[in-house]
Amino acid sequence: MTYAAMLGMTVLQSTPQRTHLTLAVSGAGLNMHGTAHGGLLFSLADEAFAVISNLQAQAVAVETHLSFFRAAQEGDVLHAVATPERVARTLATYRVELRRGSPETGDLLALFLGTVSRREREANTAEPSGA
Amino acid sequence: MTYAAMLGMTVLQSTPQRTHLTLAVSGAGLNMHGTAHGGLLFSLADEAFAVISNLQAQAVAVETHLSFFRAAQEGDVLHAVATPERVARTLATYRVELRRGSPETGDLLALFLGTVSRREREANTAEPSGA
Amino acid sequence: MTYAAMLGMTVLQSTPQRTHLTLAVSGAGLNMHGTAHGGLLFSLADEAFAVISNLQAQAVAVETHLSFFRAAQEGDVLHAVATPERVARTLATYRVELRRGSPETGDLLALFLGTVSRREREANTAEPSGA
Amino acid sequence: MTYAAMLGMTVLQSTPQRTHLTLAVSGAGLNMHGTAHGGLLFSLADEAFAVISNLQAQAVAVETHLSFFRAAQEGDVLHAVATPERVARTLATYRVELRRGSPETGDLLALFLGTVSRREREANTAEPSGA
Repeated sequence: MTYAAMLGMTVLQSTPQRTHLTLAVSGAGLNMHGTAHGGLLFSLADEAFAVISNLQAQAVAVETHLSFFRAAQEGDVLHAVATPERVARTLATYRVELRRGSPETGDLLALFLGTVSRREREANTAEPSGA
Repeated sequence: MTYAAMLGMTVLQSTPQRTHLTLAVSGAGLNMHGTAHGGLLFSLADEAFAVISNLQAQAVAVETHLSFFRAAQEGDVLHAVATPERVARTLATYRVELRRGSPETGDLLALFLGTVSRREREANTAEPSGA
Repeated sequence: MTYAAMLGMTVLQSTPQRTHLTLAVSGAGLNMHGTAHGGLLFSLADEAFAVISNLQAQAVAVETHLSFFRAAQEGDVLHAVATPERVARTLATYRVELRRGSPETGDLLALFLGTVSRREREANTAEPSGA
Repeated sequence: MTYAAMLGMTVLQSTPQRTHLTLAVSGAGLNMHGTAHGGLLFSLADEAFAVISNLQAQAVAVETHLSFFRAAQEGDVLHAVATPERVARTLATYRVELRRGSPETGDLLALFLGTVSRREREANTAEPSGA
């Protein structure tokens, strides 16, 4: 079982233009505060980033930036929607919005920006590389 | 059980000048690649950041930056060492180095920088807030 | 003369929802390469960030992130368009897109993200604080 | 005249392990506040980053992160000291500290982190590429 599966992530859409993952915050995802751990929010965004960046290339994360806006609570259903900011031959940057309740209109909990180093894949080697 | 405990993190030192956490990469921490998930590395760094930033204040994460340098493998023992870059009254920034094997001399896997919004705590309200 | 004026920036629009600045790259804005210096691109984005973040508050920059996508050349007309990502009482985060030629459809040269610490202004103290 | 020269930067040391630039804040470097513009601080740090990253390779900036800690005033002498965080074959990350008065012990005004995409240079093509 991968880390993403262990944390309960589900991929709802994965296209090069939009990748959408969801996760329900369980009691095992909380910090000392009783709110969702920053690492859980990052992990969901990072997985959306890994999925979208590996659809058409072999991608390795170079750097990520995450701004935290609101805390999430146990039971919240989180949505991570990744979209490309710019995709070039050897580097690509993606934006991931983390929202609660609804992927488009829910409260924006955090904003993720990530850059990968990438190598375009031969038509016949489709298996992706990891976050 | 908190998220940090679920992932197997152990706090080895927690002082305002240096906080040290460790984690062994298990099979449940891997990505599609079979290497440690970026979210696992972030989670360990973020927890070290949460612990150090909450020792003398109530701190809430504002933003974090993570640069990835090397992949970690199953079985690797990871060390996160957090130190202050600058601590002011309402904001503080910390650096966290993620290394493999040894906290000071092991391979540098990733470099984390994080900023919190903080409120100094009354002498008698010692319980920390979360990452 | 301010730094922004010295570099030749012009504010074309400044509303809390969208601030637009422009600058023509002169021979004095180049690096050793003969392309626009990263500092010039940052300065334009940072000024757009300063203008928009100070329209309704006294704002002080906390941190900024800049991703570079394409180089600009002497003679290029640069456009920086700043929009809010999230504005809260004491913190706000803005996005600035730097484009060449056209503010909306020109080549995206760089993407800027910045966070300010802010204090809402009394109705009658309208003068802004700086980047 | 390059942008760095126009702003009055001087390179005091440039080695792959440590590059040191200085700049005195003039009246032309100020923001609406009368303090040094964020773009001026960034420009000095970015030039130190450009110099150190191009000593042994042809480097192009990928992304930068800047945290602002203290404002600088007209007349302040700023020092930017760049050091490598990690240099690999195709990517490298550098740290730049911006201090006032003294390069090692002066007030820390800002902390810069930058990553370049790099190509090692043939022994005989020594001319650097730009920030």
